[in-house]
Amino acid sequence: MSAAVLATLEFAVDASAPDAPARTLGHRLIDPEAPVLTVLDLAATRGDGIFETLSVGRGAPQALRPHLDRFARSAALLDLPTPDVDAWVAAIHAVAAELAEHDEAFIKIVLTRGVEGGSTPTGWAYGAPSPDFSAARETGIAIVLLDRGYRHDVAQTSPWLLAGAKTLSYAINRAAQREAARRGADDALFTSSDGHLLEGPVSNLIVRHGDLLRTPPVQHGILAGTTQADIFGWAEARGYTTRQETLRAADLADADAAWLVSSVRHAAPIRSVDGVARDVDADLTTEINAFLTARTR
Amino acid sequence: MSAAVLATLEFAVDASAPDAPARTLGHRLIDPEAPVLTVLDLAATRGDGIFETLSVGRGAPQALRPHLDRFARSAALLDLPTPDVDAWVAAIHAVAAELAEHDEAFIKIVLTRGVEGGSTPTGWAYGAPSPDFSAARETGIAIVLLDRGYRHDVAQTSPWLLAGAKTLSYAINRAAQREAARRGADDALFTSSDGHLLEGPVSNLIVRHGDLLRTPPVQHGILAGTTQADIFGWAEARGYTTRQETLRAADLADADAAWLVSSVRHAAPIRSVDGVARDVDADLTTEINAFLTARTR
Repeated sequence: MSAAVLATLEFAVDASAPDAPARTLGHRLIDPEAPVLTVLDLAATRGDGIFETLSVGRGAPQALRPHLDRFARSAALLDLPTPDVDAWVAAIHAVAAELAEHDEAFIKIVLTRGVEGGSTPTGWAYGAPSPDFSAARETGIAIVLLDRGYRHDVAQTSPWLLAGAKTLSYAINRAAQREAARRGADDALFTSSDGHLLEGPVSNLIVRHGDLLRTPPVQHGILAGTTQADIFGWAEARGYTTRQETLRAADLADADAAWLVSSVRHAAPIRSVDGVARDVDADLTTEINAFLTARTR
Repeated sequence: MSAAVLATLEFAVDASAPDAPARTLGHRLIDPEAPVLTVLDLAATRGDGIFETLSVGRGAPQALRPHLDRFARSAALLDLPTPDVDAWVAAIHAVAAELAEHDEAFIKIVLTRGVEGGSTPTGWAYGAPSPDFSAARETGIAIVLLDRGYRHDVAQTSPWLLAGAKTLSYAINRAAQREAARRGADDALFTSSDGHLLEGPVSNLIVRHGDLLRTPPVQHGILAGTTQADIFGWAEARGYTTRQETLRAADLADADAAWLVSSVRHAAPIRSVDGVARDVDADLTTEINAFLTARTR
């Protein structure tokens, strides 16, 4: 039996004001393996929607507000209706409650433009126990640098490229992960066409030099990392200095330690870059992941 | 009542060889509005799949083989199983037969990586009567040039960016069309970051100078146009010279005529670029569209 949980959001369009955004009525827990989408849903035909993936620790959604804030920013970038925060919080808590027996679980929330030509979005929250990431957390990950093809300033010059929005159009992110695997690596780190380090396909980069932790700036068309932000808050309270700053390959090569951080895998120390081994900070990694896993909000 | 038609492809994995590609068993005509996809289908969560849209004239799929060839190329670029051509042809003909009373209809075929973690793809062919595009064909379309963010050679340097694959990750194409509408235009034409004209979000560019018809080269990371190829074949038989060649904004500005061409809208003459009016070749457009609509294969 699957331990997965699915809540679908329910929306209504006011017949007297068909151009007004659909209202969110609430959610409904249903069989997670039931077909719920038609082949006309723009999620399926155009990747035209947004998502967030949250971690859940013994029933507590982690970094919930930052995820919902980013969800709303993605919606704005795609001209989707503004998510009804209360309705999404209720759906997320309903799914999380079903996962309370698990130390680590995750919930993916999705909002799509709905059926082509219609005015009702589609939304759901899908939760399940997390896979076991202990190998990545303890041994570390081998990564390769892959060109994302865009200049670092593309979010400012060309907003229709949706840099910084977390959309369902992730075919390139998946292709980058397959390219990494082809090269014998575990994950990829995107670079801009003008040589800036950006982010992983589903993660943010953190590099450490002494007591300084740095991550690339969101202005470079990357997602504002919710896990990265929580790590920076934790680290500042322990005396680290943290900064968003332009980083290049040399900054990664000479860092004392580096991680790809994300909501479900948490902090995965980088043990090699393009086949060149690099140091892993096992103690700090253990501390960070203990902090991340124990979060109650 | 909807005039739409849906055939779902059926696949089977051989239990004794679970790593072998799934076999395609055939298709089944089902209610086009029925939910058939779970929220775990990678089409819906990652835009991780491919598609083609064919026109159908009184039941005859048009440019069927070129579409299926491109479908196979897209599958290869995404490391998807090679489509079973015979099975897809049968599904397409079954859907097309239901649309035989319409002068113009379309069929969209989709192949996805299936449910995350599984080895069975998802596939369908969805058909419906075409919308009325007579205004675009007769009056022409206003377009804007939008940066795609990539250099023209990105398909060679960075294949993981999937330039030239027709994937379900079309959120950027949709955002470009919304940006065009915001600027008061009907459609967009993408340019490379180094100034080459590329393609529209769902169309190819053709420019005419005298008896010379040109379109940008597929090496520039664009889709090989099936409609563009048919137009070139028709034009060559009428004494035109045709060429794939690097084009820049100036080539569009000083062209005698220009079109965005695609499978369902056919040839839409460009009547303005970034607000600057330009000549429309109404007679040639009418001839081209009469040819395209009458194709029997």
